[in-house]
Amino acid sequence: MKKFNRRSFIRKSAFSLAALGSSSYLKGKNNPASVFSDKHPFSNNAYLGDFKAPPIPHVRLAIIGVGNRGYGHVQNIAKIDNVEIVGISDLYQDLVNRSIKMIDKLAPNRHPNVSTFYGHPEHWKKMIDQTKPDVLFVCTNWNNHAPMGVYALEKEAHTFIEVPIAVTIDEMWQLVDAAEKHQKHCMMLENVNYGREELLYLNLCRQGVIGDILHGEASYIHDLRWEMEDQERGTGSWRTHHYAKRNGSLYPTHGLGPVAQYMNLCRGEDQFHTLVSMSSPAKGRKDYAAKKYPADHQWNQLEYIAGDMNTSLIKTNLGRTLMVQWDETSPRPYTRKNLIQGTKGTLAGFPTRVALEGGVEDATENHNQWASGKQLKSLYEKYEHPLYKRLGQKSLEMGGHGGMDSLMLLRIFECLHQGLPLDQNVYEGCAWSAVAPLSEQSIANGGQIQVFPDFTRGHWQKTQPLEIII
Amino acid sequence: MKKFNRRSFIRKSAFSLAALGSSSYLKGKNNPASVFSDKHPFSNNAYLGDFKAPPIPHVRLAIIGVGNRGYGHVQNIAKIDNVEIVGISDLYQDLVNRSIKMIDKLAPNRHPNVSTFYGHPEHWKKMIDQTKPDVLFVCTNWNNHAPMGVYALEKEAHTFIEVPIAVTIDEMWQLVDAAEKHQKHCMMLENVNYGREELLYLNLCRQGVIGDILHGEASYIHDLRWEMEDQERGTGSWRTHHYAKRNGSLYPTHGLGPVAQYMNLCRGEDQFHTLVSMSSPAKGRKDYAAKKYPADHQWNQLEYIAGDMNTSLIKTNLGRTLMVQWDETSPRPYTRKNLIQGTKGTLAGFPTRVALEGGVEDATENHNQWASGKQLKSLYEKYEHPLYKRLGQKSLEMGGHGGMDSLMLLRIFECLHQGLPLDQNVYEGCAWSAVAPLSEQSIANGGQIQVFPDFTRGHWQKTQPLEIII
Repeated sequence: MKKFNRRSFIRKSAFSLAALGSSSYLKGKNNPASVFSDKHPFSNNAYLGDFKAPPIPHVRLAIIGVGNRGYGHVQNIAKIDNVEIVGISDLYQDLVNRSIKMIDKLAPNRHPNVSTFYGHPEHWKKMIDQTKPDVLFVCTNWNNHAPMGVYALEKEAHTFIEVPIAVTIDEMWQLVDAAEKHQKHCMMLENVNYGREELLYLNLCRQGVIGDILHGEASYIHDLRWEMEDQERGTGSWRTHHYAKRNGSLYPTHGLGPVAQYMNLCRGEDQFHTLVSMSSPAKGRKDYAAKKYPADHQWNQLEYIAGDMNTSLIKTNLGRTLMVQWDETSPRPYTRKNLIQGTKGTLAGFPTRVALEGGVEDATENHNQWASGKQLKSLYEKYEHPLYKRLGQKSLEMGGHGGMDSLMLLRIFECLHQGLPLDQNVYEGCAWSAVAPLSEQSIANGGQIQVFPDFTRGHWQKTQPLEIII
Repeated sequence: MKKFNRRSFIRKSAFSLAALGSSSYLKGKNNPASVFSDKHPFSNNAYLGDFKAPPIPHVRLAIIGVGNRGYGHVQNIAKIDNVEIVGISDLYQDLVNRSIKMIDKLAPNRHPNVSTFYGHPEHWKKMIDQTKPDVLFVCTNWNNHAPMGVYALEKEAHTFIEVPIAVTIDEMWQLVDAAEKHQKHCMMLENVNYGREELLYLNLCRQGVIGDILHGEASYIHDLRWEMEDQERGTGSWRTHHYAKRNGSLYPTHGLGPVAQYMNLCRGEDQFHTLVSMSSPAKGRKDYAAKKYPADHQWNQLEYIAGDMNTSLIKTNLGRTLMVQWDETSPRPYTRKNLIQGTKGTLAGFPTRVALEGGVEDATENHNQWASGKQLKSLYEKYEHPLYKRLGQKSLEMGGHGGMDSLMLLRIFECLHQGLPLDQNVYEGCAWSAVAPLSEQSIANGGQIQVFPDFTRGHWQKTQPLEIII
């Protein structure tokens, strides 16, 4: 039975590629069809698409990494009802102490037994072993995301990992396999999916306001050269080395996560299919290091190979297209693009603007003008996402990237307390993050097309589109 | 000698592809390296990169096609000194008569002997044969551009062809070969290169204001569904059929032309190298026809295969990237993107906006904000293109797409009168137009990478970048 399924699956895959007219690229050295026949095509473990864990009325939580991102999460989590922080781990004692002080200040007596772990790169394992948390947060450098996540899953913790969920395709499969084996949540913490504009756009797409969806655009264009000032510890101290070791779309998920959910990718309707990628020359980092640091400084010893601007194209199973850009180096204004185009209109970000066939109510007469700013008042009144209506004000008071972070956390713990499916499953975290290694591979092969691994093993077709949460 | 050169060229080409890490795609069925070894690698005719024709103090001009675009050109040309219209051809007599009347009205006695040709699809040949014009304008439907251009070149006329210069790669080679054989200009009439913003950006790029150039973006996003109202004659009557026969980036040059010149592509510094392309589903045309026309109407009998939105990526010889989009169907505001990004800043269009490291004078403090609108006053004062300073006011008075058309025409006849090189050579017209057939081929092969034909046969390296015309 299994063998039959496998053959049938491979046959169908090959057929769909042939239908794309791409018979010749099946024969290449880097056979993109091979992802369908690699070591992960089958699993005896239950699929986690709409996975519900038993309700956890009182969540015991531990966190690894409280330097920057994790410290922000600690400050929000400390204030959330029925969540108790039981363990904090970081390489550096002063960072752990800072978090403990902040917890005492923000929520005195609410977290009476926080165990702390520091001073050794493996002590986070001790924390997991000793505190046995219901939930583990991973807020460390990218290379540690997957190993820490897999370990936590093996120890039966629901695991929440900062973006990207992992660095390589193999690590992503390890997370999927571990989560399925232990039937635990493994969610990537894509906070942008909880932005007010993103939630509005999800609702507009779902209500059919822009018609049939055709095309999306997502980016992470954010000049982060200043992070190179972190030299001993902190984000720049490890992220800078990625620019010297990898060339691709290295940090794709903030822009892509929301757009993927507008399209219902990995969820019933559609799925990621293929990707091609091209990078511009790598010049900005070298110039910046030469200008800011002495010739013998460590940042002047690296050869930066990550092209300053990466542009990738993605094709979905339904033939829709996605354009994804990444640039953390060039002097330009920040944007995530956040564009979704349908047969009846286009929604775009930075600035938030909407064009609809027939015009936007109280704003524009037709689709030849964008409505923006105050012109969007009626649209917000009519289509504000119910989750934002319910928790938006509270999230603004709590803060964190304009409330995105706290809204995400409020929603995560609501789901855990009540035993609801989370809004992002492990397959989405992996698919969104997979753009990085797939783009690296496309570029290393001169722009050759890459086929997305299907982390759902074909089950995405039975996963529900994310509901418009009331 | 020839054989040796050819082998050496192929060897070098193969090497440069291998250096891109793309060994596997050389073996495919649609071998992209084959463009280097096709029937056009050598020519005994002189290269036309910086070609100067002998001065023509009094230009005798004939035009084919005065329905829409050509009628606009006639109105501008009629008023230009030392240009005499000697022949007008169109399939329809009423259109020819309309042009004659307009010429009499705008410039009485200045064009005393206009021969007219109409009523038969081949009568334009008679016009060329009988009037023997110095200059021929081709303003007909796309499929006629190359055959008419080649015929005119064979009859020793300098030939100016509306965008795109041709539809297929083979037609483009025919134009290159005919122009070289007869040592005549063959310029595509890319008017957007004469836009005020585009000329400003060319000057800013050339003055080094945005540093080393890394990446560009160009588009033609323009809802033209209304053209389907043209059913017997006019643009919609033939353009609609292209959507039913071709899937790609069908009309790329308005956005791409200016960006290509910012990058000095085809001119000394850099050259087009490879392209990949993906189209969204094709839905909008079908929906529109169903809504607007009866079920048995001709527009409801076609199967529209051109994806509503096409996105293509281009890599240049220097490794720079270009993102090119085309959409003539979706309800969105018009844009050509017109984005050029360098190591020190980014210039973008729609709306015109500039971000520079260190800020824009009198406008922004740093590159994290765009300067736009009135904030660009100082920039325009300092970097307005000299050609626009000299002829901008006159072109505004003459009109045509905000003066672009008349500025282009004023400049063309200035060059012809004085025997100067034109601002766009035949190789640029072909390379910019080649995006359409190359994108069609990439899509037909599932997103496979395509190598640009080098219409200059390697000579682009000796062509001067377009000078900042005084």
